Amino acid sequence: VVHAVVARHAPDSRVVDITHQVPAHDVRAGALVLWRAGPWLVPGVILAVVDPGVATARRAVAVAAPGAILVGPDNGLLLPVAHRLGGPSAAVELDPPDERPPGATFAGRDLFAPAAGRAAAGTPLEQLGTPFDPDGLVGQPVPKPVHEPGGSLRAEVLWVDWFGNAQLNAAVVDLPPLLAASLVLEAGPATVAVGVVSSYQAIAPAEVGLVVDSYGLLSVCCDRDSAADRLGLRPGQIVHLRPGHLPPAGGPLRRQ
Amino acid sequence: VVHAVVARHAPDSRVVDITHQVPAHDVRAGALVLWRAGPWLVPGVILAVVDPGVATARRAVAVAAPGAILVGPDNGLLLPVAHRLGGPSAAVELDPPDERPPGATFAGRDLFAPAAGRAAAGTPLEQLGTPFDPDGLVGQPVPKPVHEPGGSLRAEVLWVDWFGNAQLNAAVVDLPPLLAASLVLEAGPATVAVGVVSSYQAIAPAEVGLVVDSYGLLSVCCDRDSAADRLGLRPGQIVHLRPGHLPPAGGPLRRQ
Amino acid sequence: VVHAVVARHAPDSRVVDITHQVPAHDVRAGALVLWRAGPWLVPGVILAVVDPGVATARRAVAVAAPGAILVGPDNGLLLPVAHRLGGPSAAVELDPPDERPPGATFAGRDLFAPAAGRAAAGTPLEQLGTPFDPDGLVGQPVPKPVHEPGGSLRAEVLWVDWFGNAQLNAAVVDLPPLLAASLVLEAGPATVAVGVVSSYQAIAPAEVGLVVDSYGLLSVCCDRDSAADRLGLRPGQIVHLRPGHLPPAGGPLRRQ
Repeated sequence: VVHAVVARHAPDSRVVDITHQVPAHDVRAGALVLWRAGPWLVPGVILAVVDPGVATARRAVAVAAPGAILVGPDNGLLLPVAHRLGGPSAAVELDPPDERPPGATFAGRDLFAPAAGRAAAGTPLEQLGTPFDPDGLVGQPVPKPVHEPGGSLRAEVLWVDWFGNAQLNAAVVDLPPLLAASLVLEAGPATVAVGVVSSYQAIAPAEVGLVVDSYGLLSVCCDRDSAADRLGLRPGQIVHLRPGHLPPAGGPLRRQ
Repeated sequence: VVHAVVARHAPDSRVVDITHQVPAHDVRAGALVLWRAGPWLVPGVILAVVDPGVATARRAVAVAAPGAILVGPDNGLLLPVAHRLGGPSAAVELDPPDERPPGATFAGRDLFAPAAGRAAAGTPLEQLGTPFDPDGLVGQPVPKPVHEPGGSLRAEVLWVDWFGNAQLNAAVVDLPPLLAASLVLEAGPATVAVGVVSSYQAIAPAEVGLVVDSYGLLSVCCDRDSAADRLGLRPGQIVHLRPGHLPPAGGPLRRQ
Repeated sequence: VVHAVVARHAPDSRVVDITHQVPAHDVRAGALVLWRAGPWLVPGVILAVVDPGVATARRAVAVAAPGAILVGPDNGLLLPVAHRLGGPSAAVELDPPDERPPGATFAGRDLFAPAAGRAAAGTPLEQLGTPFDPDGLVGQPVPKPVHEPGGSLRAEVLWVDWFGNAQLNAAVVDLPPLLAASLVLEAGPATVAVGVVSSYQAIAPAEVGLVVDSYGLLSVCCDRDSAADRLGLRPGQIVHLRPGHLPPAGGPLRRQ
């Protein structure tokens, strides 16, 4: 229905669905979906709704960032992608819809879709609502990994994809050069030797590897198996990468 | 594949998917999806298939209603939305396809998509098949709630959405004015105090509320939790709303 | 994101999603999806990704077949549909992308979508990469059923659809004429009487039938129930159809 409302306001627009599989109410997961996809969506209008506070005092906003107008609730969903695209340069609180909708709980249909459609059809941001300082937008940028005393790196699981790969908030450049050659991953009770590889198939059958994923981040992976299931990884979990050697569980770890 | 066939017949059309998640063979659920979405889909052609009787004697039809041509099986799927849009004004039984398909079980691809595509491209209804009296269309309108002796309202669960909110076939106007202030919901073995609110967050953590949902109907809801799971609600179930007071289970119920 | 990249290269193209529900890494299932859908997708560009070997030595290819350019990994995914459309007439190994992507694991976004978009916008096949002999494409055509001594037919379950219907690699023409009238299906420990029918409703409640499905193949079906669950059928499983009579389990089998 949101598509139909966008089409009414912007008949010549092209709408691409990024995902409909964000867990219910999980603003963080939705924000990270946008943060990952953002660079491939510009120039364009990005409409996003993960909105547990719908119909309450949270603001409904449109935000300008380089190449994009972002439309959605001001609850942290939009800020990470706005920063990734270069930072928010302007923001408005959306005007209420001209027509009073039958209920207040479907802002995607009644508020965000008309605003996104109008933006896609060329309406300037300032005509969509009342301007406010974009520094007042709710939310946090994506956390950085932390170098800890003793040489280990404290990282966070950002996302578990549907293959069971667990994306960390750390890239190869975050690893001390020598560290990448011989690493131990500590994740809750699990402690495993891992190496940095560039494909899933470079991980031996019984092993776990750190694949440089399609966003340039390290993902904890198994080859055709779920690393998240094997190690009990879930989004938001803290893991540690430290230098060291462990006998591999199931034979030598192939590295590229 | 249905999209591809529509595109062949109507290259300039825009196709919007409403849902692919109607439970298998559940004509009632599909009819209610269309009934809810209809007002946002007009003007347009609406193609729908929930079709356990495919390849049997059930008619394949196109139906005119204000702003829409509805295409699908004549099994009750189309009638509720046709009435919501103003009532069916004409109907045809679709002609068989020019080309005999390899089998008879995919009417969506072989029969409905070509008809919907041709309608979207401007073919008049009467050229899609053989007219018949639309009073002969199969199906029931959406049931109304019933005022019962003693002042209670007998309602039906129309739909459980993916958040676990249970939409009733009753609006605020169906409640006696005083009743809305102090209500008890009886649903099978469950009996809970409920109040009418306009947002999910207005429901206290351990409570159940009646949210005026985005279709103007009362939905049995919890805040960021599944009311359907908590109370064992399922589509088609009968519930009762009666005046009364119950001590709230987990603290005072906030009302707007 | 793949849609967005295609749109960048081919702004006037129309993109249709066939499915996002191929089981992870199941190249065979993906190849059969394309094989079934292919005839309805031409003329067009077909982009497909089931790619457990992403970022390894498997080739990334574009293949010409009558009416279509097929783009994807050369791992068997594309060959069945290429043969169904008339056979591959030319093939190229795709050039690496102009811009080095942040990681090597999302060939759909970084390699296949740009190639498919360029093909959709009219770039000739030979400008997408380096030609090679299409006889060298990886993969097998869809297997044929086998007539066995004693008059039985050895067939394979190609697919279990979401209703639980199990599509075989056999059509009515593969059955000896008399056989169709009185058949026994042996599938693992299960042995049931089956008849060939043209609709699901022609199968009696406790029975199993062979429906001529929408691709002209025989599907093992129950009426509004899952034949796959009842008989324990799964994709790739071998079944036998032999002449014979069994007392039906739940009453007479209705045939058309």
